[in-house]
Amino acid sequence: MPRPLKLGMVGGGQGAFIGAVHRTAARLDGQFELVAGALSGTPERALASGRELGLPDDRSYPTWEAMLDGELARPVGERIDAVSIVTPNHLHYPVARAFAAAGIHVICDKPLVHTGEQASDLLRVARQSGVVFAVTFNYTGYPLIRHARDMIAAGTLGEIRKVIVEYHQDWLATNLEAHGSKQADWRTDPARSGAAGAVGDIGSHAMNLAETVTGLHLDAICADLSTFVPGRRLDDDGSVLLRFAGGARGALLCSQVEVGEENNLNLRVYGTHGGLSWSQENPNRLEYTPLGGPRQVLTRGQAYLSPAAQAATRLPAGHPEAFLEAFANIYDGAAEAIRAKQEGRAPDPLRTCPTLEDGARGVHFIEKVVQSARSDQKWTDARWSAPDTDSD
Amino acid sequence: MPRPLKLGMVGGGQGAFIGAVHRTAARLDGQFELVAGALSGTPERALASGRELGLPDDRSYPTWEAMLDGELARPVGERIDAVSIVTPNHLHYPVARAFAAAGIHVICDKPLVHTGEQASDLLRVARQSGVVFAVTFNYTGYPLIRHARDMIAAGTLGEIRKVIVEYHQDWLATNLEAHGSKQADWRTDPARSGAAGAVGDIGSHAMNLAETVTGLHLDAICADLSTFVPGRRLDDDGSVLLRFAGGARGALLCSQVEVGEENNLNLRVYGTHGGLSWSQENPNRLEYTPLGGPRQVLTRGQAYLSPAAQAATRLPAGHPEAFLEAFANIYDGAAEAIRAKQEGRAPDPLRTCPTLEDGARGVHFIEKVVQSARSDQKWTDARWSAPDTDSD
Amino acid sequence: MPRPLKLGMVGGGQGAFIGAVHRTAARLDGQFELVAGALSGTPERALASGRELGLPDDRSYPTWEAMLDGELARPVGERIDAVSIVTPNHLHYPVARAFAAAGIHVICDKPLVHTGEQASDLLRVARQSGVVFAVTFNYTGYPLIRHARDMIAAGTLGEIRKVIVEYHQDWLATNLEAHGSKQADWRTDPARSGAAGAVGDIGSHAMNLAETVTGLHLDAICADLSTFVPGRRLDDDGSVLLRFAGGARGALLCSQVEVGEENNLNLRVYGTHGGLSWSQENPNRLEYTPLGGPRQVLTRGQAYLSPAAQAATRLPAGHPEAFLEAFANIYDGAAEAIRAKQEGRAPDPLRTCPTLEDGARGVHFIEKVVQSARSDQKWTDARWSAPDTDSD
Amino acid sequence: MPRPLKLGMVGGGQGAFIGAVHRTAARLDGQFELVAGALSGTPERALASGRELGLPDDRSYPTWEAMLDGELARPVGERIDAVSIVTPNHLHYPVARAFAAAGIHVICDKPLVHTGEQASDLLRVARQSGVVFAVTFNYTGYPLIRHARDMIAAGTLGEIRKVIVEYHQDWLATNLEAHGSKQADWRTDPARSGAAGAVGDIGSHAMNLAETVTGLHLDAICADLSTFVPGRRLDDDGSVLLRFAGGARGALLCSQVEVGEENNLNLRVYGTHGGLSWSQENPNRLEYTPLGGPRQVLTRGQAYLSPAAQAATRLPAGHPEAFLEAFANIYDGAAEAIRAKQEGRAPDPLRTCPTLEDGARGVHFIEKVVQSARSDQKWTDARWSAPDTDSD
Repeated sequence: MPRPLKLGMVGGGQGAFIGAVHRTAARLDGQFELVAGALSGTPERALASGRELGLPDDRSYPTWEAMLDGELARPVGERIDAVSIVTPNHLHYPVARAFAAAGIHVICDKPLVHTGEQASDLLRVARQSGVVFAVTFNYTGYPLIRHARDMIAAGTLGEIRKVIVEYHQDWLATNLEAHGSKQADWRTDPARSGAAGAVGDIGSHAMNLAETVTGLHLDAICADLSTFVPGRRLDDDGSVLLRFAGGARGALLCSQVEVGEENNLNLRVYGTHGGLSWSQENPNRLEYTPLGGPRQVLTRGQAYLSPAAQAATRLPAGHPEAFLEAFANIYDGAAEAIRAKQEGRAPDPLRTCPTLEDGARGVHFIEKVVQSARSDQKWTDARWSAPDTDSD
Repeated sequence: MPRPLKLGMVGGGQGAFIGAVHRTAARLDGQFELVAGALSGTPERALASGRELGLPDDRSYPTWEAMLDGELARPVGERIDAVSIVTPNHLHYPVARAFAAAGIHVICDKPLVHTGEQASDLLRVARQSGVVFAVTFNYTGYPLIRHARDMIAAGTLGEIRKVIVEYHQDWLATNLEAHGSKQADWRTDPARSGAAGAVGDIGSHAMNLAETVTGLHLDAICADLSTFVPGRRLDDDGSVLLRFAGGARGALLCSQVEVGEENNLNLRVYGTHGGLSWSQENPNRLEYTPLGGPRQVLTRGQAYLSPAAQAATRLPAGHPEAFLEAFANIYDGAAEAIRAKQEGRAPDPLRTCPTLEDGARGVHFIEKVVQSARSDQKWTDARWSAPDTDSD
Repeated sequence: MPRPLKLGMVGGGQGAFIGAVHRTAARLDGQFELVAGALSGTPERALASGRELGLPDDRSYPTWEAMLDGELARPVGERIDAVSIVTPNHLHYPVARAFAAAGIHVICDKPLVHTGEQASDLLRVARQSGVVFAVTFNYTGYPLIRHARDMIAAGTLGEIRKVIVEYHQDWLATNLEAHGSKQADWRTDPARSGAAGAVGDIGSHAMNLAETVTGLHLDAICADLSTFVPGRRLDDDGSVLLRFAGGARGALLCSQVEVGEENNLNLRVYGTHGGLSWSQENPNRLEYTPLGGPRQVLTRGQAYLSPAAQAATRLPAGHPEAFLEAFANIYDGAAEAIRAKQEGRAPDPLRTCPTLEDGARGVHFIEKVVQSARSDQKWTDARWSAPDTDSD
Repeated sequence: MPRPLKLGMVGGGQGAFIGAVHRTAARLDGQFELVAGALSGTPERALASGRELGLPDDRSYPTWEAMLDGELARPVGERIDAVSIVTPNHLHYPVARAFAAAGIHVICDKPLVHTGEQASDLLRVARQSGVVFAVTFNYTGYPLIRHARDMIAAGTLGEIRKVIVEYHQDWLATNLEAHGSKQADWRTDPARSGAAGAVGDIGSHAMNLAETVTGLHLDAICADLSTFVPGRRLDDDGSVLLRFAGGARGALLCSQVEVGEENNLNLRVYGTHGGLSWSQENPNRLEYTPLGGPRQVLTRGQAYLSPAAQAATRLPAGHPEAFLEAFANIYDGAAEAIRAKQEGRAPDPLRTCPTLEDGARGVHFIEKVVQSARSDQKWTDARWSAPDTDSD
């Protein structure tokens, strides 16, 4: 195994949840070593958080701008290879833009940014600087999701007819944001979270999962967004009818107020020759039914799975892997892309991660859902195409 | 147990599936005795079918009109108490109308009729004649569905926010109607099946289940219908966004082309205080999660269930009951309603069955889904109110 | 369908559970018609029970002896074809012996009798009179159990190595017999229940299921029986190590005091080429894993199942069948055996039922378990061979 | 978070499975830093393995003896705090003894050693030197296992009556050891694996799990061991009847030849007031049924769980944790014990790990199972008591 890549982190200090997940994912396979951070919005907390994590004080920066300057001041080879951005959503754009422009690879949490314009701008910047830019749609890191993607790409399901993707939670079933929950506070605040609530936080995950697995992209959508908890400023529930290019149809259901649901992301895909079903809460099994045959339960770790599924696996069948390993697979894909770039070679196609384009699609989806929800018109065009960055 | 009620049957002869289900359901508890039939559209097959079932030739009629005449010619007390109508859908209306008008109680399969006008007419006729008119939305016969209904009525879930109901099948995933399947042939024929395919056959079940359990009724819907199998004349897949009076929202998903799905009807209901989940393919369990507490798995046959759930149960917990028992519970409710009418008393409130109003709501729902699917407008008004039959 | 066979019943009057199950099973397919009964041990209750069930008073007998006399006094063709014996266990022997000796076919609940000697005597009597004698080991009536049996017989699992069969309940977790439960009272009374409690009531079911599915028979056993509820006179829990002829090994676990268990009978069979798993509480699925391949979930009603599994099926896949249908399949097998005997032909091999030999094996197993539980010796010979009735 | 503890590793070089698991578990929470190793039995492979893992060559030792000498030659504060022993079983004893005697804390894989005498000797040595000695019975690291233990300790289940623990695998269903599998080769070799095969490898896990959760210890056992694969030199399947001190009874079933089983370790415990069920392959749920109430599904991450369960949790409910996190919890418990020892304080009682006593119990269990399997006597005394090390 080569030396670990040097990683800096923006956000994720004391009291944050997702920062610790990123750090564990980065560390799990020894692909990254955390060497620098601007871990909090207040300099004191940033420093304290850095010490907790064992960062030397001179690389525990009070602001992300200071970190960018400080790292660029270091000689190449000592500075960070990549930055992880794990702040509330509204900071993704300025931070990502600055580091990408400076040639530092970026691993950014989702949703990518607040607007499609910001996303297009990032695409331009990243293409110009040539950095790797990964977006942590972490659920695509599950080995059986990669197997599902490979089955569909190989035509095992025939022509895809129907895609149902759901993401159900209940943690916002009550007015947590009024009772001191930091997580709930920023996620229900349009200024920090963006134009959508549940749809932005989890609907975008669901859509990315569906598109990644099926390889299909949206044509049009019809959305109904709700805010069930009185006083909340963003949607906490949404249902979206989906029409895909090529004729497949489907539905995306998401909610953060459904009592009894923990983190129930699940995907069903039906084609002319077979059907698939997967659920994140029990991620080591993938159900596949060929037309006319019995349902099969494919399990992680088995030799009959695709090479990409096997490459994303650490443990034998029956020794369950879960959320952190899937997240680590995203970091592994980012590490491989970064090393390939550094070494001037093509990356191993079995080790992948969601890209900036995936992130931009997610932002576009959120915008279109919000637009559709406000419209009396049934169908809202949801096609996305990458900005023509060559002409810039 | 009182003597069995005398039952006639229209349809359900050789080669039919649902006729045998009705007969078994009627016989299971000894509430009904099949004594007459017009079992097929062709007189020879009708007679042969009658003999197979042990009917005397003189009560195995060549047509339903002959059966009506023949039975009315018998003295009260010997003639049939009720008729079961298990023909293809297009015959429900004339047969039901004639028997109801003649004062014979009716048990009719679903969907009730083809149009809202027909449904309103039946309501008028039935009210005038005073007959019991049951519609076999059989899935509401499951004991745990009755418990779910009772929990919600008692306020255990608080205010209902979200209702997700799904009905997934795969039996029409290929073009069966072109390959000699009698079932597929009539169900995909607008003249016999009605204006909708999957939505009429199974979507109406799903909607009835959701309304029965929650006690909520629709305000507006937004539907997308698809026909995936080339050459098919009716929808074989549908997704519908739901808005209920009072503010609850939801989605109804149904399909008959999803490979790997057998008869996957399931319902999830979420309120401010708890959530419920039930699946028809494993009907002896109902999952209930109170806000903040662990999920509970309620099982049929247990003493903690509601009186109506217990009244609908024949076997102890762990000795599974299933489809036929649930269907028989509908017949049991019809028998109780008929006997109560005959005896001039109120029926036992624990023994119920879907009514003509439920059937009319189902017809209305189908019409509105078809209308919405053809509309560019997002929301289609789906409110239903019973016709003012007094003024007729 | 031919005319129903005429059935008499001994036991199963007011307050009994299993009598109603037998009657429903007999009626479900219209194979039997209940025409006579000696339904209770007390003449008044017998008569009242008969009236409840619609029996004419002259065929509602005060005692089983009166029923036997009364029915024999009727002309052949009017008398009962068969008798169902659904009394507490201690009456099985005298009643079954008398009816079998008189040439009336017998359907008897399990465990068959109290002792191996009684079982051997019944075998002699039944062979001499030539009657059909079915024992309602009802769990072998499940279609997927028949499919499992057929898979193993066809060699799909290779050589069987391991058999694990379990039957867990909790209804006797407390001292019900001291608190007015009629069921608990006789089942925990050695005089009426026999030498074993849980092992007799449910362990014998488990053993029969394992032997029926695998076709294997026991060589030796090692048993530990427990009585957990203070004051109880029979075992309420048992664990048995199994060694089968031919080298397979296994375990049988049964209990009636395991809180949270309803009627959890399950079977796992492992061979050199594959493994099978089935659970009674969700009986419409059978899991099968071929060596090196993914687990398959076989479901009732599918065309890929064996002819016997399909013959035992009434409803399409996804429309669950359950306990009563499986029980009715036993009655259907008995009906077929009786008609074949009456018509002088071989019975349809797809329609079977457990035989008197199966019943005798069950009695032998119970005796041996009790013997082993009392022994300091590890292994107790458990081989059974049919008595040489020819020489009698 | 304090600085990571310095860890050395013996075994776990190229081609080994469990070494990587230990390293990931040690690294997951940043509690340990791997700084030294004697990773393979051959010096070349040891060095190559060390380089792969980024060890400096001067701390990648050719033998464990060299590592012990080399580390002891370093000043306190720079030498390793602890050694992980992940070799084949036969090396556990000499390595563990030497490091423990030298005052280096030990984390040793299971089964601990080959004989009870070796175990007693280790106990003596460890007590004299005062080192922390953890044994990686990793399945006790699952948060819901700790909750189950706490529920039982709190009396929620009442008096324990029955314990069923199973561990089913299929990876040795064929003669892998004859076809180049390094894992299979040593695990089926008595010289390296010990006196038992399946019972030693997985039966000991199962027994430890049952004893840890229930707090009960064995009185007597009755075992049947089998070797199904021709030519194999150790058992590959075992069934054991269990009698616990205090009156509880149970069964332990384990096998490595059951086709279709991956790593199916599961535990059921029944008491007078409730029952529990847990399965390792879906470890984020624990089923609990109180007497007379519905089954509850307790899920990892919820606030209603015990403090120890919560302390062992990294992610919110619905974000599944799995095998590696549970394994890391063992390392966390060891880290806490080591730090407490270093700091002269009592360890946090919420952060625990299996001890040398647990390891010794496991060895004793294996010995007794082998003895019982060879005996014609039904019950074999299986009580264990710690050697009286004070008098040594």
